[in-house]
Amino acid sequence: MNEFDLIKNYFAPLSVEEGGALNLCDDAAIVDVPQGMELVVTKDAITEGIHFTGGEPPARIAAKLLRVNLSDLAAMGAKPYAYFLALMLPEKTDEHWLKSFAEGLRAEQEHFDITLMGGDTTRTLGTLSMSVTALGFAAPGKALRRNGAKAGDDIYVSGTIGDAALGLLIATGKLQIDKETDHYLLNRYQLPNPRVGLGQALAGIASSCMDISDGLVQDMWHITGNSAVGAIIEWEKIPLSEAARKALPLVKNPYETVVAGGDDYELLFTSPPGSSERLKEVARKTDVSITCIGSIKEGREVKMIDKNGGDIKLSRLGYNHFKEEK
Amino acid sequence: MNEFDLIKNYFAPLSVEEGGALNLCDDAAIVDVPQGMELVVTKDAITEGIHFTGGEPPARIAAKLLRVNLSDLAAMGAKPYAYFLALMLPEKTDEHWLKSFAEGLRAEQEHFDITLMGGDTTRTLGTLSMSVTALGFAAPGKALRRNGAKAGDDIYVSGTIGDAALGLLIATGKLQIDKETDHYLLNRYQLPNPRVGLGQALAGIASSCMDISDGLVQDMWHITGNSAVGAIIEWEKIPLSEAARKALPLVKNPYETVVAGGDDYELLFTSPPGSSERLKEVARKTDVSITCIGSIKEGREVKMIDKNGGDIKLSRLGYNHFKEEK
Repeated sequence: MNEFDLIKNYFAPLSVEEGGALNLCDDAAIVDVPQGMELVVTKDAITEGIHFTGGEPPARIAAKLLRVNLSDLAAMGAKPYAYFLALMLPEKTDEHWLKSFAEGLRAEQEHFDITLMGGDTTRTLGTLSMSVTALGFAAPGKALRRNGAKAGDDIYVSGTIGDAALGLLIATGKLQIDKETDHYLLNRYQLPNPRVGLGQALAGIASSCMDISDGLVQDMWHITGNSAVGAIIEWEKIPLSEAARKALPLVKNPYETVVAGGDDYELLFTSPPGSSERLKEVARKTDVSITCIGSIKEGREVKMIDKNGGDIKLSRLGYNHFKEEK
Repeated sequence: MNEFDLIKNYFAPLSVEEGGALNLCDDAAIVDVPQGMELVVTKDAITEGIHFTGGEPPARIAAKLLRVNLSDLAAMGAKPYAYFLALMLPEKTDEHWLKSFAEGLRAEQEHFDITLMGGDTTRTLGTLSMSVTALGFAAPGKALRRNGAKAGDDIYVSGTIGDAALGLLIATGKLQIDKETDHYLLNRYQLPNPRVGLGQALAGIASSCMDISDGLVQDMWHITGNSAVGAIIEWEKIPLSEAARKALPLVKNPYETVVAGGDDYELLFTSPPGSSERLKEVARKTDVSITCIGSIKEGREVKMIDKNGGDIKLSRLGYNHFKEEK
C-alpha cells in the first residue's frame, strides 16, 4: 500500500465530520474558530521504548497518544475540538497494525467528540514514533494557567495518584499483586483518563491548573515556580486507589512511586479557600472526585509532610525524559 | 541538561515575541486568530535517513523542517504566523547540536516572520525525528485549494523544476558536475524556498494550487484528481535552471528526474486563460518567476508531450515514501 492509499483507506474516513479537513486531500486544513472563542493548541509526541513498549495493542497506543494531548487541553480548561497526526512508521508496520490503530483513533474520536483534521505519514528507519497536535476552544481570558496560585489557596488533585507509576512496574514485570489489582493499575498506566469535563468546569474557579505527567511534586514545582509561591502537600491526604493501597507495601519507595512516578494525567489545581462549595458542585456535576491535598504558602519551596507535620524527603522529584548529564 | 533546562535555554527564547506561547511554561498555547481571518494548519514530519541524511549542519535541518511546512501554507495562500515543534532526540544528541539547531530556527523565524509557540521534546531510542505544526492566516474563503482547476485553465509553476532531485543525486554521490553547479543544486535540495509571498498573491487569481513535493507529474495528478479534470504538460516549457541544463545530460532518466524527482517545493497552480496579465504583475511584485507549462483538459488523464506533440512515457510518476508492497 502506498502513502496515498494509506491515507485514503485509514485516515481520511476519520476526518469526514470536519469540512475544514478538506478530506485530507489538500496541503493544509482550514480551522474555523467560533466567534468569541480562543484557540488552545498543544503538541505532544510519543515514541516506542520511551512512552510505550510497542507490545501494546495498537488501539491502546492510539488512545494514549490522543489522551496525553487531551489532558493538556483539559489542564487549560479548553474544550477539545480536533487533532493533527504525524505518524512515523518502521518498515515492519503492517496493514493489520494500521487498521487497529485507526480503529483505536475512531473510538477515541467518538468518546471525546473530536475529529482528525490533517497530518503526515512517513517511513522511519528508527522506532515507531508519533505526534499529535490537539486543538481546543476556551472562552477568552478563561484558559487555566500555571501562574495564578496565591498564598492561602488550597491545592487539589482529581482522581487518585500513583496508579500509573504502579502500572508501569507491572507492565515491566517488576511488580505483581493479584489479577484484578494488576489489571486495574496496568489500565491506569496504559489508558490515561484526561479530565476534559473537569478542566472546563474549573475555568473561572481554579487559580491555577496543570495536568500531572511528570509526577505530583515536580509538577507542583511548575505551578509554584510560575506563580512565585511555595506549597505544602500533606502525604496523608493524597488520594490513593484501593489497588494502590494494596500495591504500595510491596514497593521499595512508596513515596517516590506515588508523588514522583508521573503519568497520572490527573489535574493538579489551586483554588481560593472560599471556593470549596463550588468545587463540590463541580465534582458532582462532572462525576470526578477531587481532593484537597495541601495549601499554597509564601516562599518558593514545595514541601511534603507526614501526619505529624514532619518533612518527607524524596530521593527524586519526578520523571525526566532526559537523564542528567555530567 | 534536563528537559526543562533544554526548553528554557534553547526554545523558550524563540517564543518571546508571542504572548500566547506563555513562555513555553504552560500545558498549551493560546492562539489569537485575527477577526475576519481563517486559520490554516499543516503538519509535516521529517526523519533521519528518509528526509535528511543526518550529516547536514543542524541549522540546515531546522530550515528544511520549517520550510516544508511553510511551503504547505504557501500552497494554501496563507500568511505564516507561528509553529509548534516536536523533537525526538537520540541519546547521542549533544548541546552543540541543539544550540546550532535552535540558531537555525531563529534565523528562519526572522526570515519568515514566524514564532515558536509550543511543542514537545523527548528522547527516542530510534533516529532523530521531528515534526512541525505550522499555523497561518487566510482571508475567509480565499485559501487556495486543489479542487478548482477547470478545462481550459493554464497550468503554471514557480521557479525552476528538477533542481532538488539533481541535488539529491549530488548529496548521495551519484552525480558530480562542477563545484559551482554542484553547490547550486545541493542547495536547492537542502534548502527549499517556500513561495509564501507568491501563494498569498495568488489567492483570488489561481483556480487551484499546491506545492510540488512528490514530483511535478504526481502532484499534477493530485490537482486533476481533486478537480475531476485532465492535464497536458509540455516538456519543453518546464523551466530548468542553468545548473539543471548542465546536469541533465549526465543522468540516466532526465524526464523522470525533473518531473518525478520531487522536493521542488515550487508552487504548481492553474489559472483561467484571461489571467496572464494579472499573473505577470504578481510575478513582478513577488519577484518570483512563473511559467505556463500546459493546460487543463476534459477527461482524467495527465499527459506529458514533447515538442512534436508526442506522448512522453514515464517509468515512474513521483516519489513515494512507502515502497509498493505485494
